Amino acid sequence: MKRVIIDMDHVMADFTDQYLSWYKEKTGVDVNREKLIGLTSESLAFPDPKLARSLLFVPGFFRTMKVMEGSQAVVKELNEVYDVQIVSSAMEFPQSLIEKYEWLQEHFPFISWQQIAFTGNKKIIKGDYMIDDHFKNLDYFEGERVLFTASHNLLSDKYTRVNNWEEVRALLLPETVKKQVVDSE
Amino acid sequence: MKRVIIDMDHVMADFTDQYLSWYKEKTGVDVNREKLIGLTSESLAFPDPKLARSLLFVPGFFRTMKVMEGSQAVVKELNEVYDVQIVSSAMEFPQSLIEKYEWLQEHFPFISWQQIAFTGNKKIIKGDYMIDDHFKNLDYFEGERVLFTASHNLLSDKYTRVNNWEEVRALLLPETVKKQVVDSE
Repeated sequence: MKRVIIDMDHVMADFTDQYLSWYKEKTGVDVNREKLIGLTSESLAFPDPKLARSLLFVPGFFRTMKVMEGSQAVVKELNEVYDVQIVSSAMEFPQSLIEKYEWLQEHFPFISWQQIAFTGNKKIIKGDYMIDDHFKNLDYFEGERVLFTASHNLLSDKYTRVNNWEEVRALLLPETVKKQVVDSE
Repeated sequence: MKRVIIDMDHVMADFTDQYLSWYKEKTGVDVNREKLIGLTSESLAFPDPKLARSLLFVPGFFRTMKVMEGSQAVVKELNEVYDVQIVSSAMEFPQSLIEKYEWLQEHFPFISWQQIAFTGNKKIIKGDYMIDDHFKNLDYFEGERVLFTASHNLLSDKYTRVNNWEEVRALLLPETVKKQVVDSE
């Protein structure tokens, strides 16, 4: 069974929506989504980057993110034909560890604890496919790299890009692949 | 820089000592360390395996483990010449996530968050060396496998065995290796 490594923030969880709405709630300032384009360090898009960054350490930030549209259905389908592994860079925000675990339990209950990893970097991860929004993660991956569109990665087309979960389905779950995988079991 | 993957329980942290002493504290029953020999599922060594296993979910169990003798000094030395990555199977016991993080901060403060990963399985991990006490982890590793002695793994000699941290030092930090690694930087 081929292994698909799937990222959480910006891929399964709507990090940008959470960041913009929490900033607005705390400061009253509405930051336009377009300000994030091309910024790897997203806090720099906000008038007060330090305050923005501090939000990432507030309990609840990671626990209450919205689920990315279509992700639940497609991850569930992937889970039937691939060895799905959820790998999230969580270590920078230690309070997020349990929150991310609980978030997965709530929104992706078909993902077992054996399929979750929280890392400080992803250079140590191996698999056949990696779906991620960060070049810093994909750059070190030896399998096939799938760039999930996020504001900060719009300016480069280094890897196969998917804009949403429908495009992930089209890329990784065409009828022929489903059949091949099932046949080879 | 070559990457060394290091396990926590039984390798950096004295899991067996903690398990025996917590069981004794809760039940008054003193279980001999020899009962654990060859048992991959260690709770089976205790008269009440279900109670024993429940201890692994009690807050504080992972946070208060003793440090394995010699581990701090040798991991620190390894950290100077290798890309050291601490990789622990923590996902089965979600409450252990933050405890293991804090334990590392307390006892191994020179290990940064970029060097820590908590996983549900270690099949997804790549590196040049893996120091671990479990065959289920070493079996899938493509680099050099180093079996750290624990009661449960005494009955097989599948991989290079080290009995303590002095032997890790001798294996991975002979003078010639230290020099080679520094020269190649």
